[in-house]
Amino acid sequence: MTRLKLFLIAFLGVSLLVQAQTDDGVLRMNEFRVPKMRKIIQIPDVGTYQVLKCDFHMHTVFSDGHVWPTVRVQEAWLEGLDVMAITDHVEYAPYKNDVKVNHNRPWELVKDVAKENNLVLIKGTEITRSTPPGHFNAIFIGDASGYIEDNSSPKDKEAVMKAKEQNAFIFWNHPGWKVNQIEGSYEWLDFIDELTKEGTLHGIEVINGFGMHKKALDWCVDHNLTVMGTSDIHNLVRHDYDLSDIVHRSMTLVFAKDRTPEAVREALDAGRTVAWASKFLAGKEEHVRNLFHACVELSPAFHARTSKNSAGAEVVTNYYEIRNNSDLYFELVLKSGNGTGSVTLFPRSAQVITAAGGQDKLTYEVVTAYVRSDKHLQVDISLK
Amino acid sequence: MTRLKLFLIAFLGVSLLVQAQTDDGVLRMNEFRVPKMRKIIQIPDVGTYQVLKCDFHMHTVFSDGHVWPTVRVQEAWLEGLDVMAITDHVEYAPYKNDVKVNHNRPWELVKDVAKENNLVLIKGTEITRSTPPGHFNAIFIGDASGYIEDNSSPKDKEAVMKAKEQNAFIFWNHPGWKVNQIEGSYEWLDFIDELTKEGTLHGIEVINGFGMHKKALDWCVDHNLTVMGTSDIHNLVRHDYDLSDIVHRSMTLVFAKDRTPEAVREALDAGRTVAWASKFLAGKEEHVRNLFHACVELSPAFHARTSKNSAGAEVVTNYYEIRNNSDLYFELVLKSGNGTGSVTLFPRSAQVITAAGGQDKLTYEVVTAYVRSDKHLQVDISLK
Amino acid sequence: MTRLKLFLIAFLGVSLLVQAQTDDGVLRMNEFRVPKMRKIIQIPDVGTYQVLKCDFHMHTVFSDGHVWPTVRVQEAWLEGLDVMAITDHVEYAPYKNDVKVNHNRPWELVKDVAKENNLVLIKGTEITRSTPPGHFNAIFIGDASGYIEDNSSPKDKEAVMKAKEQNAFIFWNHPGWKVNQIEGSYEWLDFIDELTKEGTLHGIEVINGFGMHKKALDWCVDHNLTVMGTSDIHNLVRHDYDLSDIVHRSMTLVFAKDRTPEAVREALDAGRTVAWASKFLAGKEEHVRNLFHACVELSPAFHARTSKNSAGAEVVTNYYEIRNNSDLYFELVLKSGNGTGSVTLFPRSAQVITAAGGQDKLTYEVVTAYVRSDKHLQVDISLK
Amino acid sequence: MTRLKLFLIAFLGVSLLVQAQTDDGVLRMNEFRVPKMRKIIQIPDVGTYQVLKCDFHMHTVFSDGHVWPTVRVQEAWLEGLDVMAITDHVEYAPYKNDVKVNHNRPWELVKDVAKENNLVLIKGTEITRSTPPGHFNAIFIGDASGYIEDNSSPKDKEAVMKAKEQNAFIFWNHPGWKVNQIEGSYEWLDFIDELTKEGTLHGIEVINGFGMHKKALDWCVDHNLTVMGTSDIHNLVRHDYDLSDIVHRSMTLVFAKDRTPEAVREALDAGRTVAWASKFLAGKEEHVRNLFHACVELSPAFHARTSKNSAGAEVVTNYYEIRNNSDLYFELVLKSGNGTGSVTLFPRSAQVITAAGGQDKLTYEVVTAYVRSDKHLQVDISLK
Repeated sequence: MTRLKLFLIAFLGVSLLVQAQTDDGVLRMNEFRVPKMRKIIQIPDVGTYQVLKCDFHMHTVFSDGHVWPTVRVQEAWLEGLDVMAITDHVEYAPYKNDVKVNHNRPWELVKDVAKENNLVLIKGTEITRSTPPGHFNAIFIGDASGYIEDNSSPKDKEAVMKAKEQNAFIFWNHPGWKVNQIEGSYEWLDFIDELTKEGTLHGIEVINGFGMHKKALDWCVDHNLTVMGTSDIHNLVRHDYDLSDIVHRSMTLVFAKDRTPEAVREALDAGRTVAWASKFLAGKEEHVRNLFHACVELSPAFHARTSKNSAGAEVVTNYYEIRNNSDLYFELVLKSGNGTGSVTLFPRSAQVITAAGGQDKLTYEVVTAYVRSDKHLQVDISLK
Repeated sequence: MTRLKLFLIAFLGVSLLVQAQTDDGVLRMNEFRVPKMRKIIQIPDVGTYQVLKCDFHMHTVFSDGHVWPTVRVQEAWLEGLDVMAITDHVEYAPYKNDVKVNHNRPWELVKDVAKENNLVLIKGTEITRSTPPGHFNAIFIGDASGYIEDNSSPKDKEAVMKAKEQNAFIFWNHPGWKVNQIEGSYEWLDFIDELTKEGTLHGIEVINGFGMHKKALDWCVDHNLTVMGTSDIHNLVRHDYDLSDIVHRSMTLVFAKDRTPEAVREALDAGRTVAWASKFLAGKEEHVRNLFHACVELSPAFHARTSKNSAGAEVVTNYYEIRNNSDLYFELVLKSGNGTGSVTLFPRSAQVITAAGGQDKLTYEVVTAYVRSDKHLQVDISLK
Repeated sequence: MTRLKLFLIAFLGVSLLVQAQTDDGVLRMNEFRVPKMRKIIQIPDVGTYQVLKCDFHMHTVFSDGHVWPTVRVQEAWLEGLDVMAITDHVEYAPYKNDVKVNHNRPWELVKDVAKENNLVLIKGTEITRSTPPGHFNAIFIGDASGYIEDNSSPKDKEAVMKAKEQNAFIFWNHPGWKVNQIEGSYEWLDFIDELTKEGTLHGIEVINGFGMHKKALDWCVDHNLTVMGTSDIHNLVRHDYDLSDIVHRSMTLVFAKDRTPEAVREALDAGRTVAWASKFLAGKEEHVRNLFHACVELSPAFHARTSKNSAGAEVVTNYYEIRNNSDLYFELVLKSGNGTGSVTLFPRSAQVITAAGGQDKLTYEVVTAYVRSDKHLQVDISLK
Repeated sequence: MTRLKLFLIAFLGVSLLVQAQTDDGVLRMNEFRVPKMRKIIQIPDVGTYQVLKCDFHMHTVFSDGHVWPTVRVQEAWLEGLDVMAITDHVEYAPYKNDVKVNHNRPWELVKDVAKENNLVLIKGTEITRSTPPGHFNAIFIGDASGYIEDNSSPKDKEAVMKAKEQNAFIFWNHPGWKVNQIEGSYEWLDFIDELTKEGTLHGIEVINGFGMHKKALDWCVDHNLTVMGTSDIHNLVRHDYDLSDIVHRSMTLVFAKDRTPEAVREALDAGRTVAWASKFLAGKEEHVRNLFHACVELSPAFHARTSKNSAGAEVVTNYYEIRNNSDLYFELVLKSGNGTGSVTLFPRSAQVITAAGGQDKLTYEVVTAYVRSDKHLQVDISLK
């Protein structure tokens, strides 16, 4: 006969201080474990908006992903995401001989664990048409079971309209995916134009995983669509991304009124987003600019040095500290003014820059921030 | 109409030299990817034997693991394992409403990809009886479909005998698993004694994940069973193990004649193993000792310093370099002789030690290597 | 004859975008360089005070340190310190055959570079008496050339009074340094008592490098002296400290009105400090408590789960997120209340904790924060 | 009165097992220290030669370096160098008001500590002429006190001949140093030609720190000079180099008969060297080729896959494992043959490559290994 003893909870956090006092014959080597913690990705508020870290495109074994749905919650929590959507393919289920097809199932399997981990979970799916036009994500959907599994071209419109009926937020995925394989696929297609004009399409993935589809940024600007960034992760995040202080999974930064599904939807509808891929940002100029200024600040001049120039005149050089209070990364190159020519702002760090006295500002190009396929953000740094 | 263009292969390796010359509208950010490489875990041969890195205990979504079986191959390849077995539970299938129960399926799904990645794949399963006696792994099995799913106690023997009929190698898993919950479970049970005496049981997990079951080491020594170390991984390896130069998943080092399934089986049957958990080793004294001496070497004295002792006599101090040519880790504390008192041998590194002249050897206790529950390996370092 | 061409500035920041377009026969491999950036150590303000990161004890080749004084500025800048003092020994100059003795020289050599890097530089020196009483640091000193180099015991008082004449801030260094070598050295000495009573001594190093002198914390509390933490660095910081998100050089956190020498002095005189050594904090209870609450916040309950207890009654479990908005580290163990038993708060991270409904608070012991040699900080976490 | 107690040695190695049992009032936090270990840089022997890791160009506070000479030994030991030379400037001593000029002094200060740490120390100096011709290093020198401190052009020859009189090994430093500042400085100068023809000059720095002077590689090949690689470190190595598995300080790999000063000199005189800068190698083709083949091996085909090509014929694809048994890094691009197009060989790792059956070999260009300014090493990988 066996009796239950008091269960001793094994805490994951490695403690130098609290150690088991008695030897029960098991040596527990918790010092080799991954620290269990939710990283805080630090991005200051932009005006009155919180900047939510969102990934609206992920896969699981319920389509062609490599993991059980709960792993997506675990990853999102560890990495510090606020909002996530699992979007398995409707029309593509390579594991269907082993895993029963049920398009609502990933959502059902994670909704409680997402809630207990303080993650905002959005229901979604991927409408997987042949290329072109290729794939669409629908998020904020209702019942996922009625979507059309026939992926033949004539059904393309009907498939997308199914999402529209549910009042979903719909975006076009990785438009340049097959740029080198299928001619004409990476263009502003008639089909896309139609969806846009009728208000069915709401956004485009400018960043998908490790690819920035630069032409899509122009399309978002020109047709007033929302700029999206997603991981489209199939494998483990840690087998794809070399996570570090600089490298994060690709995602959408959403400027939202609060941390609720409703606020996320409102912000997406209003287009208040920036797509983020580790060192790179892409978005509409207004939002990228506001994000930059929310993160970066210049100190007052803390030092002035006087010297003579080649003509023998006295010149003053002022010293400033430029601080990046965020986990984002910015590279700046001077465009006008007389000062430090190049500045790299690593996450949560500062640099000293200098500027000749008597100027109001320096103007920098942020060469890691795109506001058009061929245009970087340009910022004025006020010296007053 | 679309036409196929030449397919441009995207190589994963990050190249500083070979870059796309033309702008096709997609910025590819491969510098943020995890380098795709098979790590070599460096352990010199032990005598005429290769030291194979083996994990014989892993789970997938086909029982209660979190990943698709192919992820286990991917992980094993990246981490530098030679040999792996997926051992999903026979009697426990929490995902059975979604994933069709088929005990042969994980093996079928990975056997080609394992082969193409130069991994030795052993077919296995976990026989999951109630505790006590708890769980058994059977590897080198045949058809997995005929195993008994009824896990009631009266069927325990029959369940194990099913594996024996297939000439499997059978080991008892994590005997101290519920030491603080079920009284009497972490003992040399009658059931185990019977299996051992009749030759059904071949080994015991001394190391399972982050736990070293020290009493099991004594049982292996006393009853001539093979010492096993496994990860018993359910989650992603990278979410459990804080992988580094020192931290690896827990595994069995098998001293084998070559890198084939047959040689692995021969070595297991002969008991030529050491269980490894990052900083710690556990095994039969002979094997741990041979492993240590295969990895660690002392240089000839490279320097001698002469000084006077407190009595005014001249004394010589000899300087040696002690090198650890392996990815293992050893901590040494001096037991006898006059020399450096404590030495930490990090992976692939050297230390300088000194010894008073006129001695033949120093004797150290390797406090990170267990040869009994209460005994560390003791080694002589010859100074000749 | 040679002519000067335009000088092309080589920027240190690694750029993926801005690359030399012409091949001048030199391949520049800047991708292998250490990123040149000033880390921001994030600690929120404590009430109206800024928390300045200060190290008041460092050595250079002008006494027995291993580096030229400017290296100390470089290190401090990279690590994110606000305030630094170089405090070479007055009485001990082992390199004097090579390096000319001049106690003001380290200060002279770094004062401009400190200014240009926005570091607050405090002039200091180490008065190096035999143990006991051992060493004292004097900071905010005037001319360093008049200090007494004779370190015989009879001169001890006179040596310290030299600093007092200059209105220096004086603290006793590493009182437990030779606890195992010199009996009676790690005690509240008559000499110290005298200095304290007459107002000559202002603080004691509770943390010096890798040692926390716990008895000194009691002395600071009982005799109203300021708690100091310093690196006492002689070697390179990067050869001593395994710098990481958790490991920083040991230092004093000073709660100051602003980031000026005057404000630092005012705070030191007022005793508003906490000594910090990577995972550990030591200080007067009031300051450690205020620091904890400035860094750590609890979210409102974001989720409630209802279940039945063993008696069949409904019980509610509330879920909260506890966030550490700082680069400090805290380990918490529950002392009273019904909730999560143990919480590790890594730098800039969050954890989920649960608490049974119907409670006002949970009380935790912060086992990594000392307020007495034998007492940790105890904090109430309000659940309202 | 004080009495000495037994001295308890504080071992640096962090031990989880051996902990102080008694509380003496000092908490020792050795877990935050840098592990004290000599890294082994793994490079297999090249034929009968050992591959010694050598840095023949470093500075200290005795000229314009930032550290005391012993730091250079400490760094070299931690990083795993075999051979080092401190080469402070003869003609340039910016700290001379503080540090007494004595050109033999750095050597004297480190010779014992180098010996005790099993480092081969070579005596050297830097002859610092104006550019052009710029600087020369002389190693294996005798008395350094007689060198000429006047750096005016007319004395250039005399200054170099001083080293020749001592039978020094003389090499030209960083010839492209001022390529963008001084026209004509980065050329095969008459002065260099003269030194070479008369046998005074023995080598040229092809790699200096983060710069590869590619034209110098051609000059070494064409004029039979020895290829050198050095760090020319002034600052701390850890403040310049972002040390990792891939990034090491720049150095010369010397193929020597044994690990003695004499063998190093013999190898330098014979030109058996390769310059190494983290991912890049530069050297004479024979030596780079031999080094590559010593490090990289191909397994026998471990798997063959048969498929049909577009014409319906059966084709065989063979699978091989290519292993890099060294700490070097190689990037390969296929030049001829039918197989894997691109292979990145990270340190101590393997990759799987495939090749169509019926071939003898694949030919790759090693794009990270230079054998001429405009030519990479090309290697045949035998498939037999």
